[in-house]
Amino acid sequence: MAPFEGRTVLVVGTGLVGTSVGLALTRAGVDVRLADAKPEILAEAVRLGAGRPEPDGPGEPAALAVVAVPPEAVAEVIGEVLESRRAEYATDVASVKVLPTMQVRERVADPGRYVGSHPMAGREVSGPNAALADLFEGRPWVICPDDGTHQQAVTRALAVARLVGATPMTMTAAEHDAAVALVSHTPHVVAALMAGRLAGAPGHEVRLAGPGVTDVTRIASGDPELWTEILTANAAAVRPVLEGLRTDLDRLMAALETPVAGQPVLRELLRGGVDGRSRLPGKHGAAHTEFATVIVAVEDKPGQLAALFADAGAAGVNVEDVRIEHAAGQPLGLVELDVRPGAEDELAASLRERGWTIRG
Amino acid sequence: MAPFEGRTVLVVGTGLVGTSVGLALTRAGVDVRLADAKPEILAEAVRLGAGRPEPDGPGEPAALAVVAVPPEAVAEVIGEVLESRRAEYATDVASVKVLPTMQVRERVADPGRYVGSHPMAGREVSGPNAALADLFEGRPWVICPDDGTHQQAVTRALAVARLVGATPMTMTAAEHDAAVALVSHTPHVVAALMAGRLAGAPGHEVRLAGPGVTDVTRIASGDPELWTEILTANAAAVRPVLEGLRTDLDRLMAALETPVAGQPVLRELLRGGVDGRSRLPGKHGAAHTEFATVIVAVEDKPGQLAALFADAGAAGVNVEDVRIEHAAGQPLGLVELDVRPGAEDELAASLRERGWTIRG
Repeated sequence: MAPFEGRTVLVVGTGLVGTSVGLALTRAGVDVRLADAKPEILAEAVRLGAGRPEPDGPGEPAALAVVAVPPEAVAEVIGEVLESRRAEYATDVASVKVLPTMQVRERVADPGRYVGSHPMAGREVSGPNAALADLFEGRPWVICPDDGTHQQAVTRALAVARLVGATPMTMTAAEHDAAVALVSHTPHVVAALMAGRLAGAPGHEVRLAGPGVTDVTRIASGDPELWTEILTANAAAVRPVLEGLRTDLDRLMAALETPVAGQPVLRELLRGGVDGRSRLPGKHGAAHTEFATVIVAVEDKPGQLAALFADAGAAGVNVEDVRIEHAAGQPLGLVELDVRPGAEDELAASLRERGWTIRG
Repeated sequence: MAPFEGRTVLVVGTGLVGTSVGLALTRAGVDVRLADAKPEILAEAVRLGAGRPEPDGPGEPAALAVVAVPPEAVAEVIGEVLESRRAEYATDVASVKVLPTMQVRERVADPGRYVGSHPMAGREVSGPNAALADLFEGRPWVICPDDGTHQQAVTRALAVARLVGATPMTMTAAEHDAAVALVSHTPHVVAALMAGRLAGAPGHEVRLAGPGVTDVTRIASGDPELWTEILTANAAAVRPVLEGLRTDLDRLMAALETPVAGQPVLRELLRGGVDGRSRLPGKHGAAHTEFATVIVAVEDKPGQLAALFADAGAAGVNVEDVRIEHAAGQPLGLVELDVRPGAEDELAASLRERGWTIRG
């Protein structure tokens, strides 16, 4: 906590993210002050140990304010906090960055005291009670300085990101918004539109659904209100990605409408999918690794997974990833264990020896 | 094996699917004969115990031929097998059904002796060596009779589906093709086009990718050659689904281009995604169930998962599903345990007591 030695950090807005920041900074030894428009929400965050309430009246300004309020309130709160000198510098945590940056510029005499940031972590639930001191552990925390940003604002925001255990990255607000449009907002649109096709489909069609469409549509169950706001706020960055997608979709539909020998367009688009997929980061931020998979049939009852993992552990093979697939109409699940290529035979043999039914 | 008492089943094509059918039928006590154009592939299937080679020359016809050859060869092989009376009835296993049904009609004097079928199981690998006696266990096996199909063809194909452990379903070839267009082929297109957007993206954008886009694009790594064939063969059924998708995409893009208060179109489309997603079958073919999730931080080393599942088992809570998420840049993984709603507090408390770091 050297960067905040003898100083305080102010967290404004003690919902899930604000309270998690407070808990993590407090654990790291930082003196955290908390504020929230709702006294009961503030009291809850204090009770959980996220910090102490911000004292009333003028006093020593905080070294940095972390403003964790709903996106539409960000600029107003940042403006108030900086102009009233409750803090020397301020950052926010909203998932879109160009819009708040522009809004802050219009409101603050010295907008260089603000730097936008986006911790890429969250939960399906909200409120201080859902907060976790290690919510940001190992997650990217993007910080978006521009030419006018004071170095101290960046240094202090980076210090917060590191103190809460996140992996800080810096890029411009426009780069950030383009990146989340590509890797978060467009995938949400794609999943939602695909899932939408299932909504009116006959039952016998939906009954044939397997693990593929289940994966593709998983994120489509996200809150439509929240996603309407996110997509609207980042429309400028999402639209070009959707336009590229629309062009590819048109080309693919034309290739299906008028097939030609060898279907070169279809092949090219499907190969592009394989290429793009291979660029996704694998575990530990390393390049994407293809694992070998051992498939085990297990009965669907308590203790089976425990026994399986105990036996896998006894084989001395590290399980890198695991998926469970349930067979329709059967009290039986398939557990897919991903292991480093080369270790699959050893694991399969060892599990077979211990009486497991191996399918792969 | 009553349906095949004193009779034989002929499997033509001893790759992954044919050999798996042979293994499963043999295990069920059926007398299986095998044939393959490549002698070494046939020999391998025989060696694995999938059946005995079909005797040369005329003899008692098999009760049913299961033709498991590449899609483009299906009609020719079915025609030959039926016309030469190597089998009384025949079925195939291709993943598209209208096209082979039409082709068989053109080739066979009595096309009612053929019934199309589609066992919805497979593996990433191919060949007899990858075959598994329980490949079809609990999987849907669709059988597609039409008005001209002999009842015996249907009865015998159903018997095979049941004997190999699959869950048989009957529908028309057109219904089947529409169903797989919706739940399998269109999701593949969507995943591939989304993944294609990542192919040319800057590295700093791809580095922000999280579990959402990883799920959406997982199936995009499927073989482009195979998927080019599948999409081309089922183009007539895939196109209307893609047209619906494109209409929705256009509406969504228009809503982002010209936002209106409350964004009703965007909301409606995102809600449609939530609705469609909720129709996907859950485990055991039951309606989709939302589980409660307990998130546990584990170190990335052998034995950790074993210890975790042992402790979860000791809590007496059945883990319904599990996902592992690896944090970028950290030797730490998050394990998400899905349990029946209501059981999450008990499991979390029990794991916490045993020293685990719970995040949810």
